[in-house]
Amino acid sequence: MTLVLDAAAQDLLFREARTANTFTDEPVTDEQVQAIYDLVKYAPTSMNQSPLRIVLVRSDEARARLVSHLGDGNKKKTEAAPLVAILAADHEFHEELPKLFPHYPAAKSHFEEIEGRTASARFNASLQLAYFIIGVRAAGLAAGPMTGYDADGLNKDFFGDGEHSVLAVVNIGKPGEDAWFPRSPRLEYDEVVTTV
Amino acid sequence: MTLVLDAAAQDLLFREARTANTFTDEPVTDEQVQAIYDLVKYAPTSMNQSPLRIVLVRSDEARARLVSHLGDGNKKKTEAAPLVAILAADHEFHEELPKLFPHYPAAKSHFEEIEGRTASARFNASLQLAYFIIGVRAAGLAAGPMTGYDADGLNKDFFGDGEHSVLAVVNIGKPGEDAWFPRSPRLEYDEVVTTV
Repeated sequence: MTLVLDAAAQDLLFREARTANTFTDEPVTDEQVQAIYDLVKYAPTSMNQSPLRIVLVRSDEARARLVSHLGDGNKKKTEAAPLVAILAADHEFHEELPKLFPHYPAAKSHFEEIEGRTASARFNASLQLAYFIIGVRAAGLAAGPMTGYDADGLNKDFFGDGEHSVLAVVNIGKPGEDAWFPRSPRLEYDEVVTTV
Repeated sequence: MTLVLDAAAQDLLFREARTANTFTDEPVTDEQVQAIYDLVKYAPTSMNQSPLRIVLVRSDEARARLVSHLGDGNKKKTEAAPLVAILAADHEFHEELPKLFPHYPAAKSHFEEIEGRTASARFNASLQLAYFIIGVRAAGLAAGPMTGYDADGLNKDFFGDGEHSVLAVVNIGKPGEDAWFPRSPRLEYDEVVTTV
């Protein structure tokens, strides 16, 4: 009652949604991915940097290449997922700032230095990764985000330009049989929140 | 229609929600913050690391200290916000893993090395920052996340242990007059998503 969001939406996005490890065969369409993107693109990033880039791995050849970079525990479920997406940060996001942050033409000049720019790209793309996971759930699908992979291998194989770094690989689909483990405990409010 | 989440919830969380720069005087209660946390705590992090920590800045003294570390453009709105929260990553999150990831007792041993542990803390706490922003909106409130501050000063002043790093300062409340700028453009689907 304290929240405005209706209980069904709370369940869909947070309480009943779970990280899935198995999926049905039902395909995930480009229309679904576009609907997810067109919703979550509005969530905020610093200076509207919007550095997230998404690669949908649809061909058998690309799927096999992707799986070759994953940790052993992630291979089988990724081979079987209806759709696999690689979510990465674009370190050259600042080239888009004249378009994305038009009321402040000097925005791009804040990011001439590569180290700070890369950190900003990864931070803001991480926010967008989280929004994307919520968006997948908003489409009635389950997400299976993974970070267990050879990041250098994945970056080189899928982004040969050296200007992107992978943040997560996300399996997407309808949850299958025994899709998840029992939920692990969360920290209590008083363990996380303090007041000064 | 492609999404399962109802249109009102889509509007509340993404389409009509905006980063607010002014707020009404209506207070934000601890009950609201607890309801937000108790919803978004379920969203996923790697190995359930849950490294986000939140400091609610409620006293005038703490508010003045916080504002002293902010960039000039962020001072006035932060002085006026009903509630200000500091969201930080706990670099020692691995101490909680025996509780948070009980089915894999070796989890903590993956994080003995400080550099990788800090990166993991900041990455996963960034996901949780994004979930928190969505949760603020789920409570019918507006969030005003900011990253323009002296991070070293803020870390030292509010987390003297050297074991936390601030990710964002978030103003929270009901939007006031002229609360936001016109929405900046977003990247189109085809600029962000490719298929292989």
